[in-house]
Amino acid sequence: MKITDIDIIVTCPGRNYVIVKISTDAGIYGWGDATLNGRELAVAETLEKHLKPLLLNKNPDNIEDIWQYIFRGTYWRGGPVLMTALAGIDMALWDIKGKVAGLPLYSLLGGKSRDKVLCYTHVYGKDFNSVKNEAEKHIKKGYKAIRIQVDIPGCEGTYGTNDSYSDKLPVQEIWEPSPYLQTIPELFKYLRKELGNEIELLHDVHERLTPVEAKILASQLEPYRLFFLEDPIRPEHKASFNVFRQTAKIPIAMGELYNTKWEAMQVMEKQLIDYIRCDLSHIGGITEAKKIANIAEIYNIKTAWHGPADISPISHLANVHLDLSIPNFGIQEQTEFFPPEVKDVFSNLPLFKDGYLTVSDKAGLGIEIDEEAACQYPYKRGYLPTSRRKDGSVQDW
Amino acid sequence: MKITDIDIIVTCPGRNYVIVKISTDAGIYGWGDATLNGRELAVAETLEKHLKPLLLNKNPDNIEDIWQYIFRGTYWRGGPVLMTALAGIDMALWDIKGKVAGLPLYSLLGGKSRDKVLCYTHVYGKDFNSVKNEAEKHIKKGYKAIRIQVDIPGCEGTYGTNDSYSDKLPVQEIWEPSPYLQTIPELFKYLRKELGNEIELLHDVHERLTPVEAKILASQLEPYRLFFLEDPIRPEHKASFNVFRQTAKIPIAMGELYNTKWEAMQVMEKQLIDYIRCDLSHIGGITEAKKIANIAEIYNIKTAWHGPADISPISHLANVHLDLSIPNFGIQEQTEFFPPEVKDVFSNLPLFKDGYLTVSDKAGLGIEIDEEAACQYPYKRGYLPTSRRKDGSVQDW
Amino acid sequence: MKITDIDIIVTCPGRNYVIVKISTDAGIYGWGDATLNGRELAVAETLEKHLKPLLLNKNPDNIEDIWQYIFRGTYWRGGPVLMTALAGIDMALWDIKGKVAGLPLYSLLGGKSRDKVLCYTHVYGKDFNSVKNEAEKHIKKGYKAIRIQVDIPGCEGTYGTNDSYSDKLPVQEIWEPSPYLQTIPELFKYLRKELGNEIELLHDVHERLTPVEAKILASQLEPYRLFFLEDPIRPEHKASFNVFRQTAKIPIAMGELYNTKWEAMQVMEKQLIDYIRCDLSHIGGITEAKKIANIAEIYNIKTAWHGPADISPISHLANVHLDLSIPNFGIQEQTEFFPPEVKDVFSNLPLFKDGYLTVSDKAGLGIEIDEEAACQYPYKRGYLPTSRRKDGSVQDW
Amino acid sequence: MKITDIDIIVTCPGRNYVIVKISTDAGIYGWGDATLNGRELAVAETLEKHLKPLLLNKNPDNIEDIWQYIFRGTYWRGGPVLMTALAGIDMALWDIKGKVAGLPLYSLLGGKSRDKVLCYTHVYGKDFNSVKNEAEKHIKKGYKAIRIQVDIPGCEGTYGTNDSYSDKLPVQEIWEPSPYLQTIPELFKYLRKELGNEIELLHDVHERLTPVEAKILASQLEPYRLFFLEDPIRPEHKASFNVFRQTAKIPIAMGELYNTKWEAMQVMEKQLIDYIRCDLSHIGGITEAKKIANIAEIYNIKTAWHGPADISPISHLANVHLDLSIPNFGIQEQTEFFPPEVKDVFSNLPLFKDGYLTVSDKAGLGIEIDEEAACQYPYKRGYLPTSRRKDGSVQDW
Repeated sequence: MKITDIDIIVTCPGRNYVIVKISTDAGIYGWGDATLNGRELAVAETLEKHLKPLLLNKNPDNIEDIWQYIFRGTYWRGGPVLMTALAGIDMALWDIKGKVAGLPLYSLLGGKSRDKVLCYTHVYGKDFNSVKNEAEKHIKKGYKAIRIQVDIPGCEGTYGTNDSYSDKLPVQEIWEPSPYLQTIPELFKYLRKELGNEIELLHDVHERLTPVEAKILASQLEPYRLFFLEDPIRPEHKASFNVFRQTAKIPIAMGELYNTKWEAMQVMEKQLIDYIRCDLSHIGGITEAKKIANIAEIYNIKTAWHGPADISPISHLANVHLDLSIPNFGIQEQTEFFPPEVKDVFSNLPLFKDGYLTVSDKAGLGIEIDEEAACQYPYKRGYLPTSRRKDGSVQDW
Repeated sequence: MKITDIDIIVTCPGRNYVIVKISTDAGIYGWGDATLNGRELAVAETLEKHLKPLLLNKNPDNIEDIWQYIFRGTYWRGGPVLMTALAGIDMALWDIKGKVAGLPLYSLLGGKSRDKVLCYTHVYGKDFNSVKNEAEKHIKKGYKAIRIQVDIPGCEGTYGTNDSYSDKLPVQEIWEPSPYLQTIPELFKYLRKELGNEIELLHDVHERLTPVEAKILASQLEPYRLFFLEDPIRPEHKASFNVFRQTAKIPIAMGELYNTKWEAMQVMEKQLIDYIRCDLSHIGGITEAKKIANIAEIYNIKTAWHGPADISPISHLANVHLDLSIPNFGIQEQTEFFPPEVKDVFSNLPLFKDGYLTVSDKAGLGIEIDEEAACQYPYKRGYLPTSRRKDGSVQDW
Repeated sequence: MKITDIDIIVTCPGRNYVIVKISTDAGIYGWGDATLNGRELAVAETLEKHLKPLLLNKNPDNIEDIWQYIFRGTYWRGGPVLMTALAGIDMALWDIKGKVAGLPLYSLLGGKSRDKVLCYTHVYGKDFNSVKNEAEKHIKKGYKAIRIQVDIPGCEGTYGTNDSYSDKLPVQEIWEPSPYLQTIPELFKYLRKELGNEIELLHDVHERLTPVEAKILASQLEPYRLFFLEDPIRPEHKASFNVFRQTAKIPIAMGELYNTKWEAMQVMEKQLIDYIRCDLSHIGGITEAKKIANIAEIYNIKTAWHGPADISPISHLANVHLDLSIPNFGIQEQTEFFPPEVKDVFSNLPLFKDGYLTVSDKAGLGIEIDEEAACQYPYKRGYLPTSRRKDGSVQDW
Repeated sequence: MKITDIDIIVTCPGRNYVIVKISTDAGIYGWGDATLNGRELAVAETLEKHLKPLLLNKNPDNIEDIWQYIFRGTYWRGGPVLMTALAGIDMALWDIKGKVAGLPLYSLLGGKSRDKVLCYTHVYGKDFNSVKNEAEKHIKKGYKAIRIQVDIPGCEGTYGTNDSYSDKLPVQEIWEPSPYLQTIPELFKYLRKELGNEIELLHDVHERLTPVEAKILASQLEPYRLFFLEDPIRPEHKASFNVFRQTAKIPIAMGELYNTKWEAMQVMEKQLIDYIRCDLSHIGGITEAKKIANIAEIYNIKTAWHGPADISPISHLANVHLDLSIPNFGIQEQTEFFPPEVKDVFSNLPLFKDGYLTVSDKAGLGIEIDEEAACQYPYKRGYLPTSRRKDGSVQDW
């Protein structure tokens, strides 16, 4: 069996997605997700011009070999662009292997370790009351866990509180730690009072705090029993999490900005985090994510893979297949942000019921893609927002 | 698909092997190896009386779930008896999954990362000259790497220099570190002079030295360029390898006495070893070994899984399938010790050619077992040798 | 003096126990406990088929030599099955030595360091009120320390709150950390209010929490002054206790799932625990437990050996003899769960008075066993419960 | 002053280079190098489609702000593609600033700390004798330091011993550590005997050894007084250098595969290396490299920036400007590999004299580029070689 063609489809059904289709001489083809928000064309160009010629005529069964050949054969390795390109290839190859075997991906990965996958969704709002109302709506839909963000007084634009996607130049937000640190504990105090203790609550700091600010926030949030606090500190300096961990008695999740298992390892081997949150499409795909999950198991760390809508339904299916199969699954991010047009292009998405996700028993990932529909939604330039402090300096968004 | 029956076959075609056969309502069955030298019946009893009732009617596709259910569900977990029993189950389930998929095990594990698997064999003798002659014979057969052991003057019985298996009470050997430490460097000096530099040489200390003795040996062996030095120190106190590593400039391999990834992790996360040598049938099977290989990859540690003849051909096939698929394979132990009667019971063993091993493309492990023949070789009591010092005290064998 | 026979008796006076009787040519015999809950027959088979032939004709006086010979001579060493078998042998040999000397075991171990041994018992119930009532009953009986467990709302079956032993397939419990973490601090807040501060309270997490969850629980339990919190984290990854220890200001006990002093050492040398809780019959017997106590003394760690009813009265007597003799004894677990039939088989159990335990001055362990009665209670298959999460995945029980 | 346009020129005067030209409303423009070997178009696409729109109308004077805005504003940050794109921007902005000031770059960076810059060149050959002859030629040219590579017997293609650049599919080399480890010490023994002790010798392992193999090589090279040993171990797992450092008594250099100061920091803060060898065009440009040099100064680590010919003359000029200005400069890589056509496109390259490099006093970087000539050398697909082991598995090239 040989790889005969690779198509890279950049489509924008509401948001940009980069789809990889690997075809074989057996007539079987596989789908992968190579979406990198705001840098989609860099990944597509990598695949089209640099990686595709390397893959033609290769045996698609040898996923590990191809992974290593691309990762290490690039010499100048790693980083979001190259690892997202590699993830697109890796997912498509697993999809092919599943179709060859006639087995769903979760079966290839070791079979089901659970029947269904706990997920959390996103709620945000302008003030405490609107957040509460929105959360109640989601609880009625069956959600058992909700990530909550709220507007911070005096900050124009706050992460997670508007639809942050733009097709022009990046939205520029203003953010300051002081009002943020005052607002968030009050928010969760209010929510626990209004919503009770049964619903699991989460919050995403989005890498905006210094280590000591993160410690302060963790300490103030302790009484409100968060499921986890996400991304409290910038991703580059892993040892910062030591500082945080000294006093924090709150579960933390981290990892969507990591691009290799070696980065993830640094916070896992010292048990600096509780949930590893890598993004399958930015970490090199299913092969690398499975390895990361295995390592996390040793350290009693659970998974919380980064979820949509800034990845395509292909990655999200891969998420849920992996979630079903690994012993140390924790929770799955699952926003309801997929634009409605997405369903014109992608079908057979993960099924949501009563707070949990499942997938069908179709072979491979189980995704179906309408290529003609994809072509009707051409790429549109889009940027994630950026953020600055009041003095005009750059702030991590 | 459901597990309908589990047969435990203890057979002795020259040596005792414990075979697990898991049957399903789909007519597909799988084979696993649950051989634990000298404690075979303890494993067989565990499987027959305690584990079999737990597995009937379970779905064999859910390997990871069954692994966790047995490992953690036992509550009093771990150790060679229980982990060997679990390995037998795990291998049989992977064999079933391969047959369901119609794919060889290496394909399920990610496909081939290499075409063939470098192996080493064992040579031992009464003196330097006979060792050299024996090594030359194996070099002619195509071996690229040979583990060498030699009789130590004044020590009655030395590990690896006689056929150490007994069907009566254990052979009692006498061993002393002082003559051993004087003999081994001379042996390898002699061999490098006689055999040249191309052939890879290995040596197994068999856990008999203290940390400082191991440092001394390593230092003296440096000029003779060993592929690795195996098991220099007892397995219990992992930090002993720190002492060894301080000065040793020689690759070391360790792990056949570990029973979980947590034990293996302790010497891997500090990079105290260079080759991880767990035994698939004592570490809980393919599922655990694959995880260990993945972790080792991070640390630039390669694999050297424990090989026959004290495991059955089933485990050895599992070894080679895993070796073919993982990126960080190092070398595979492959003795020629399988008693001739083994081929009456087991067929489709790994193929040796020109110093390398391969397996067939049959689905699953590819092993074939003649159950009737197995019954014609009933269990015989057998013990590994034991060892004492000249003063009569217990010495690790 | 020589060992002339070894009998392995599997008896079920309400629960299964594995009794080892070592006979000698001097007419003296000793009793040991080789009970491993749910895996009894694996231990019995190990003893009968593999270890017994090694021991016949050996001098029973050489306990340390026999211990080393079995432990290291097995080559594939350690783990609950082999260490429980070894414990059975070790205890019986100590019993013989005591009888030869005409001295109680505590005398051989160095004599009494104290007159009596503080013990704690178990109380559990469906709700706070019934727990309180049950605790008050035990306080009236004289108990100074009580381990408390309670049903967790929404969890069918909770560790320690029902008689968890089954003779069919394992009971499957459902457990979730979130309601557990909310319930337990409330329980102890209530109990301190109702029962006052004099009674010592303990709680057993039974290895069910992640490191950060354990930190949170410890933090919330701080005001209620627990004697200790038992087994907060899974046993495999010892470094997890570092994470816990960073902020926890509550004494913790750990160790019933350890099988060697090397495992115990890992949490002791960094003083990650306050009480070492090994089980004499799973750690290789009195010889190993005495060494562990000696090491613990260095680090100012006290003992809290695992107690009945899932071990036989033989181990429990060994516990109290050791407790009486060592300087760093902490507390002794002592449930009242022994089924009534136990007294048909075993007599001369530890004496309870006013919250403390003592033993008789009979030679050796002092146990007496009615072999005929034992035979009237044949082995019945029995499993400990298992536990799953609501999504169907395996949870440590 | 505002950025008015950005041109990305991909040119192939013998090799592919990606040139960034930033134009301003002041009529001043700057040149930057965004060459990433084998992934040139991915960088060009990143610049053209994703970064250019962000930079138009920005004030080019605010280099630090633009650096942070691009690095952190990308959200999915880091890695060779994005950091090379950022480097191209950063260099061009420094070139503009120099032209605005009328000062050479070294002056803006703090002025000259030295008059000239020690450099080393590359020599390679098929056997020891041809290497020696080639080295002697370079010594006559004035070189004081030479990096030496040689063909390894039995390995088809060895890093650094052929012109490794291909415009078709990647050259596939075969490499094995065993003959390599035997050859290299012999090579340097020979060279020291033939060339004497005055000439400084270097060697590049090119990330091909495991930690223990690197220890062995370092030990055997000790007598031959290398200036440094380059890149002994793969770049991902920084702690591997701890293992190496335990016994190695040889200076080492590392860093061309790092993409941020955070990666470089990990080997610097524990002083695991002696020379930091980042590539200015892959680490985000002059701004990041200057910071890395500053941090290295703290730890008594010197610089040895990666040099041509796989970067353009623009980066090489930036190298030498930085080398002249920092206190802790070590040595500068300077091959003579630039294809002859390069001089049609680029002029005013660093000046070589008697083993040292200098630059002109022109404002900014001082580079001059003939855009028309660049267009006459259009992009040609090109790959670096890849490498495999004899068993067919992937080897780091």
